[in-house]
Amino acid sequence: MRPPERSLALTRVTEWNDGAVRPVDDSLAAEEPLEIRIGSAPLTVTMRTPGHDLELAAGLLLAEGIVHSSTGIAALRQADPENGTPSNRVEVTLANPDLNLDALQRNFLSTSACGLCGKATIDAIRRRHLPRPDPGFRIDPELLCRLPDVLRASQPVFSRTGGLHAAALFDAAGALLAIREDIGRHNAVDKVLGWALLQNLLPLSRHILLVSGRGGFEIVQKALAAGLPVLASVSAPSSLAVRLARELGLTLVGFLRGRRFVVYSGEFRCLPAAVPHSGPSV
Amino acid sequence: MRPPERSLALTRVTEWNDGAVRPVDDSLAAEEPLEIRIGSAPLTVTMRTPGHDLELAAGLLLAEGIVHSSTGIAALRQADPENGTPSNRVEVTLANPDLNLDALQRNFLSTSACGLCGKATIDAIRRRHLPRPDPGFRIDPELLCRLPDVLRASQPVFSRTGGLHAAALFDAAGALLAIREDIGRHNAVDKVLGWALLQNLLPLSRHILLVSGRGGFEIVQKALAAGLPVLASVSAPSSLAVRLARELGLTLVGFLRGRRFVVYSGEFRCLPAAVPHSGPSV
Repeated sequence: MRPPERSLALTRVTEWNDGAVRPVDDSLAAEEPLEIRIGSAPLTVTMRTPGHDLELAAGLLLAEGIVHSSTGIAALRQADPENGTPSNRVEVTLANPDLNLDALQRNFLSTSACGLCGKATIDAIRRRHLPRPDPGFRIDPELLCRLPDVLRASQPVFSRTGGLHAAALFDAAGALLAIREDIGRHNAVDKVLGWALLQNLLPLSRHILLVSGRGGFEIVQKALAAGLPVLASVSAPSSLAVRLARELGLTLVGFLRGRRFVVYSGEFRCLPAAVPHSGPSV
Repeated sequence: MRPPERSLALTRVTEWNDGAVRPVDDSLAAEEPLEIRIGSAPLTVTMRTPGHDLELAAGLLLAEGIVHSSTGIAALRQADPENGTPSNRVEVTLANPDLNLDALQRNFLSTSACGLCGKATIDAIRRRHLPRPDPGFRIDPELLCRLPDVLRASQPVFSRTGGLHAAALFDAAGALLAIREDIGRHNAVDKVLGWALLQNLLPLSRHILLVSGRGGFEIVQKALAAGLPVLASVSAPSSLAVRLARELGLTLVGFLRGRRFVVYSGEFRCLPAAVPHSGPSV
């Protein structure tokens, strides 16, 4: 029997607790492959938590620089259900039919948790143009501190499975616009940014993205592709994430917990009195 | 100045703490791209924490089914340093020169946190042959409970950065054989299993793999490729991880914390009195 939500899978498991063994029912975070096609040609497969699949596809195309706004997508549809089961395939028609599909396939980056696979050379990573976010945006530290509570309060599946990552988009006043959960951190981000793209909100020049996990290089890359000025995480960023954020002037906040956070880049947006760094570069 | 370990990057950041702003020095988990070449042809690039790069390359080739033991690799070397900096490129010579490199490139899965990117169809995921692990292996629950403490005590970088995942390989008596840390969960697993491959320890039919993060589908796939009978995680597995583990008879343990754990598959190896499940399938 299919559980009420596709993002959860119920199953019987066995608990060992200090020597006592008993069967228990458990909710698992659902993970299924999603195939994305450009027309009828397969572009990539990503392992994801089912739900919001069109947004995920749109977000992946944005993150990869294949489209830059909703006008780049002529049509976006989920394939028809098979035997009553929702399809694990999304079909995209690009507005520009001249894009070289073979090159896209080879360079495409997509997975349940990353965005750099398939790149066959290191140069290919660096070659990509990413815009500099709006330097005029400012955010109050007090507002920043309130965001993790909003994220947690809006994350129903995570609390039951312990297995989902979340990404949430806030406006300049700290109002929650969208939250998405997924077994993969990168998918959660792609779904939220894909939602924004389909809502014609891009570039997100006065918005804040909050992620539940670490802020790695690819998350920074996705935030920049959407035009975001502020990326915050409850955990630590990587060295390359910090380097890219500093290069392009993104405000990168880590360890956002309670009434404390660490700013790794773009201090001027959230700490007006901050002086420029003179410490070692990463 | 390069920090003493390549897996760490030192940098100056800014802390906001209840309104007080001050500069602090921070250790970041290092993240750099690693390019893997077969001969002179680029196979893939993965974002990883530098260190144990040859093991990472060997583990990736194993996970992808390109090699099955150390005899499949004729030569494995890190490219020469450039300007005094260790190279981010590993060059592999396969023992079988007839492998179709173009097909490998297209199907290759590699990233800082996954193993399924680049698959252009869902069928490609299912087509792969994975061996059934040894049904004769047994493990005492008490021994299982001790493993997370060993992992934590052996994880020096994580404690400083909060940003690294770990994977540890234990023998049947619970002795730690190898531990590797990486910004990507999947890389940590690839490094440990690549180490085992290069040590001629495959198949790991009487070993236990413990991972610090979630046990997703790809982690199960990697464990099976190495012949492991037991995969344990301190967190939750996904639905597809459980399905694959049950299909092939891998013992999959989750939420291994203190004196409690949950068995999702292959109960007979660690819970001798367990009865077969009759609950809903995932």
